[in-house]
Amino acid sequence: MPRRLFAVLAIVLAVLLRPALGDEGMYPITALSTLDLKAKGLQIPVSQIYDPKGRGTSLIEGIVHLGGCSASFVSPDGLILTNHHCVFGAVSSASSVQHDYLTDGFLAPGRRDEIPARGMTARITEQMRDVSAQVLGAAKPDMDPLARARAIGARIAELTKAAQQELPGKTIEISEMLAGQSYLMFISTTYRDVRLVYVPPRSIGEFGGEDDNWAWPRHTGDFSFIRAYAGRDGTPADYSADNVPFHPRRFLKVNPNGVNEEDFVFILGYPGRTYRHQSSYYLAYEENLRMPFVAGLYQWQIQAMEEMGKGDRAIALKFDSRVKGLANTMKNYRGKLDGMRKLQLAAARRSEEAGLQKFIEADPARRATFGTVLADTARIYDRMAARFQHEMVLDNLVSMSTLLRAATTVVEAGSATPPAGPARAASNPFANYHEPAEVVFLEKILGMAARLPEGQRVAPVDARLNGDFSEANIRKVAEAAVAGASLKSQEAVAAAVEKGPEAAATSADPFVSLARDLAPLRRELRDVRERRTAELSRLSALLLDVRQQYLKKDFIPDANSTLRFTYGRIRGYSPADAVWHRPHTTLDGVIEKTRDEFPYNTPQAVRDLARARDFGRYRLPKANQLPVALLYNLDTTGGNSGSALMNAKGELVGVNFDRAWAATINDYAWNEAYSRSIAVDIRYVLWVTEKVGKAGFLLDEMGVGASRR
Amino acid sequence: MPRRLFAVLAIVLAVLLRPALGDEGMYPITALSTLDLKAKGLQIPVSQIYDPKGRGTSLIEGIVHLGGCSASFVSPDGLILTNHHCVFGAVSSASSVQHDYLTDGFLAPGRRDEIPARGMTARITEQMRDVSAQVLGAAKPDMDPLARARAIGARIAELTKAAQQELPGKTIEISEMLAGQSYLMFISTTYRDVRLVYVPPRSIGEFGGEDDNWAWPRHTGDFSFIRAYAGRDGTPADYSADNVPFHPRRFLKVNPNGVNEEDFVFILGYPGRTYRHQSSYYLAYEENLRMPFVAGLYQWQIQAMEEMGKGDRAIALKFDSRVKGLANTMKNYRGKLDGMRKLQLAAARRSEEAGLQKFIEADPARRATFGTVLADTARIYDRMAARFQHEMVLDNLVSMSTLLRAATTVVEAGSATPPAGPARAASNPFANYHEPAEVVFLEKILGMAARLPEGQRVAPVDARLNGDFSEANIRKVAEAAVAGASLKSQEAVAAAVEKGPEAAATSADPFVSLARDLAPLRRELRDVRERRTAELSRLSALLLDVRQQYLKKDFIPDANSTLRFTYGRIRGYSPADAVWHRPHTTLDGVIEKTRDEFPYNTPQAVRDLARARDFGRYRLPKANQLPVALLYNLDTTGGNSGSALMNAKGELVGVNFDRAWAATINDYAWNEAYSRSIAVDIRYVLWVTEKVGKAGFLLDEMGVGASRR
Repeated sequence: MPRRLFAVLAIVLAVLLRPALGDEGMYPITALSTLDLKAKGLQIPVSQIYDPKGRGTSLIEGIVHLGGCSASFVSPDGLILTNHHCVFGAVSSASSVQHDYLTDGFLAPGRRDEIPARGMTARITEQMRDVSAQVLGAAKPDMDPLARARAIGARIAELTKAAQQELPGKTIEISEMLAGQSYLMFISTTYRDVRLVYVPPRSIGEFGGEDDNWAWPRHTGDFSFIRAYAGRDGTPADYSADNVPFHPRRFLKVNPNGVNEEDFVFILGYPGRTYRHQSSYYLAYEENLRMPFVAGLYQWQIQAMEEMGKGDRAIALKFDSRVKGLANTMKNYRGKLDGMRKLQLAAARRSEEAGLQKFIEADPARRATFGTVLADTARIYDRMAARFQHEMVLDNLVSMSTLLRAATTVVEAGSATPPAGPARAASNPFANYHEPAEVVFLEKILGMAARLPEGQRVAPVDARLNGDFSEANIRKVAEAAVAGASLKSQEAVAAAVEKGPEAAATSADPFVSLARDLAPLRRELRDVRERRTAELSRLSALLLDVRQQYLKKDFIPDANSTLRFTYGRIRGYSPADAVWHRPHTTLDGVIEKTRDEFPYNTPQAVRDLARARDFGRYRLPKANQLPVALLYNLDTTGGNSGSALMNAKGELVGVNFDRAWAATINDYAWNEAYSRSIAVDIRYVLWVTEKVGKAGFLLDEMGVGASRR
Repeated sequence: MPRRLFAVLAIVLAVLLRPALGDEGMYPITALSTLDLKAKGLQIPVSQIYDPKGRGTSLIEGIVHLGGCSASFVSPDGLILTNHHCVFGAVSSASSVQHDYLTDGFLAPGRRDEIPARGMTARITEQMRDVSAQVLGAAKPDMDPLARARAIGARIAELTKAAQQELPGKTIEISEMLAGQSYLMFISTTYRDVRLVYVPPRSIGEFGGEDDNWAWPRHTGDFSFIRAYAGRDGTPADYSADNVPFHPRRFLKVNPNGVNEEDFVFILGYPGRTYRHQSSYYLAYEENLRMPFVAGLYQWQIQAMEEMGKGDRAIALKFDSRVKGLANTMKNYRGKLDGMRKLQLAAARRSEEAGLQKFIEADPARRATFGTVLADTARIYDRMAARFQHEMVLDNLVSMSTLLRAATTVVEAGSATPPAGPARAASNPFANYHEPAEVVFLEKILGMAARLPEGQRVAPVDARLNGDFSEANIRKVAEAAVAGASLKSQEAVAAAVEKGPEAAATSADPFVSLARDLAPLRRELRDVRERRTAELSRLSALLLDVRQQYLKKDFIPDANSTLRFTYGRIRGYSPADAVWHRPHTTLDGVIEKTRDEFPYNTPQAVRDLARARDFGRYRLPKANQLPVALLYNLDTTGGNSGSALMNAKGELVGVNFDRAWAATINDYAWNEAYSRSIAVDIRYVLWVTEKVGKAGFLLDEMGVGASRR
């Protein structure tokens, strides 16, 4: 057993011995065998979930990584069950004015009718290798943080390349598990031909929309069926009419009887990111600066877009997906901010760190190694705070102005420097271009630049405002710039890139000129951030190390989009004083919320079935009710969307798709009292598929059709 | 026993025999002895609540009608317990820049320090007489509806006058209980010297503010103590330093131990208005026209005022109480609309009426009397709908424009015609005058007038807009009018009234001129409404009569601000699928909601006591928790604010102050599943008074101080 794996096991054991921690944990799959899952309620051997010895098949071979989502195989013919919101983009792409699959739903009557899910791939993790020693071997003790980070990056690239040569056709990824301690190589196969099979109408799959997002009680039928295809030899292939359904080594058995309150359940999936081992300085930066700024700016953008879209459906539609994305993040941040305030998370971590510092000081050897870790970390966040507004304005100048983003692409096309900061890449940035919005957004961000304090100002913007920071002048400058812009289509941008750097260097286009002047500032920002990340990486490793010594425990690695296991129980909770939320919702709740407009426009077929109380064999045992969604205390985060929720026998009983409001804080801290995740109940999936979608043949394919009525 | 009282008893018995009705009922106090309250859980003789034979004292002598609120005596020295929001205006009036009693709270250390509660009176209902025969005797069979309504009105005035002569010093009021069936005379005494004793800070008494209004779970300490004073002879007197505390014949015993889930409780109080016997046409008019219009217009006004108040605290303060009032109504209407939609209230009543019509048609005698009742009612509401926008614009022209309201006062001062429609009377309409708001509001309502359909237009407004209905012109006209107005203070208005009708008839002031031109339209509207009300009154009586025959039951009279009794149990409920609300909240919930800004800025003293878990003897029996608010299934409405919640022994255990969101629909229909009312728990009242207010001497006065620690 490799040393690093042993470390992971030690972590896990330590965690299990702390009852206060409850069922926290997105366990790396390599740590599974060390959990006494039988005692917790699992009724199958752990080797049925993952067998490091590779005897026979195990459940992880039935689990799919679907871009930013998770999914699972549910038939021998490559049928995949995931969330509606995970296939949303593909359904949107496949739709046309004639065929509005988002609104009406989609069902392929036969396999030949299944249509490509553009941009989607299905990846199956097959093997994990501990490469900690090789990766960390690249770092020399005398390296400065930046050199160290670059050396490790280079070593990871080498190891990846070597593995790719050793295992042709496989996808190789090396992930840091615990900062400065452990690295795992994930070997997987990626199937590139994925097709839509059954997608319920949006009024089921997205029922409740943004209103209900991050909320319980939930009534969303957030599921869809897709299928993975392979070449005739069974290996990954690009889309071709000749491809055949992929036959996975393992698929999950669907249990049409669902689960009950307090039943044991678990999830295998690909949680994205958590930040549970960060310093109080990080938490305070997030709580006091970054999240309020972003949530506020997003809210402003949403309101501006809603205002512009009022009374003009075509304009509103242009903004639709952008508003959706911003609203999702904004609501998530508001939930986190709410939780951080209520739990006083930063203060609690700060008080832990005070004790930690005393612990460090108490021993000369510790003091030598860790003495300044906290102070150094604090200093970095202080510097970030001092530059915060400058950085945010620089980032958002480019992200909020489509024209400046396009001009930046042209200006930076020749250079080797990737753009600094967030740059939401869209396939065609002009697809939803709306000039009045461009003016309003530019005006907003120029106004923010105009109000920057001394020492953080953006000189190229100042030059254009020419000393007049009045609202009127800012509006004038924004309007003139947009009116004078020449790069207003993807074709124009491509042509400008074609012309090369000389043309960009002399262009009189106001945005190209601004992008040119901003380029040095953006380069500087990129360098600052690279160095900062490297320093924080070094400090995080030290902090983790000494916190483990201080707290006398090891840690479960933060989520990092790699395959994880989490378990717990179907359980309600109290989100507020005097309130209890039960762990399942029913079709009566759907009807209760139903209205004439999206996202509450339940299809007539569902209304009729509800009125007839035609729940078939999916009715709840003791009530004439159809279950819709489930709540449980598992530890999930973004990326777990689409994960199969499994019962004690490893049978699929739900499809995970969200967290309750209080659990947005999960990314920083998990707690049995408030961390709850949400799945669509398999009984609702099957009922909708059979009774509403009239796709009983899919139930037959999954092997649950025999008892259909 | 009078015939009418017998009818009431019959109603009550019929109701009690229908288990589906649960505990619905705001019973007239005269019906009490017919309820088998012992079987329901009452542990004292009914005669202890009200004894028609007048032997000894009964609880109703301890109940106070406090303007639009209810209250109760809690000491032999006239100490009164009611809601904080019932004394809000008086506290506001008593406050100054030096003494901000709203923010800081108020405690009179001794009786001499108690300060007048301006505008408040305390009325005690002492006697009820059935005057149905006398009142209805005024109506002759051949009278048309208008003549009939006027004859009844005149007879009520006569009877009132006669009683006042018979009982000098008493307050006499005759109320219609069941349309066309029963009238009761209420004889009461009104004490005019009321003083503030203890008012908690707004951060307790109004904790949660508008956000939590009409909502459960609730954490508002919505209580205050005041005291009634009388002349030295014990009779009502205007305020004088020589007055002495009033000694009520009966006061309620305060029980510091509170109540538990499922305990029997009852309320005596003065519920304002309910509309449970109205036709489906009324419900549809409310649901489809009036409430959405008012809620929408109020929301617009609130947003406009919040916009204007942004960044200027002085302006925001001017709007404060208006915003509060509008928001309260708006939220109530939204709750009702929500409930009407969910319960399909109008459709259910319509289907009942279809059966009723068949029942009427089935018998020639019934057909002769009731054959056209429903059709006639429908016709009236159809006519109202056809004129709806016209009437709303006419009403809101005057109610939204302070200047037009003032001008209307001047123009209509001479005439005998009271203004039509709602005219919110303020002591000084210019107290919170803000000219930019005047322009914005006038512009809004002129714009609405400009968009009126043909046949509903307001000619005087059209004349002023002169055919140009563009936004720009409307703004210009509004601005010019406000700029040219001369009556911009209470003094200017009083002087103009003084000058008499001739001056008003020739004044060039743009608002006086508009008011002059609107006067005939307003007179017409008043006449239309008087006739409509008379007709509906006749039809309501017929409808009530035949519905009683059809449903084989009698009805409990709608609430009408007279003394009523309602009983039930402390009980949680399910406001939505998968959600359960427990029937009590705790101090932990207060802390959970606490933030730095009003309405969540819990005083430091409360925070400290909460941290120390210093709950004294008020702790919940089985938990280290302090109860704050209570939920119960009693039948209440506006006007029940401040009512004592009493236990099975008639002891005071809470102060009623609101309803849960779903129970806003109570005004149209009560239902055990969703009708819930809210009180502040007596334990929280006593804990705050003793531990936060340091007013333990009030507990001594109430006789609960003995066991204080």
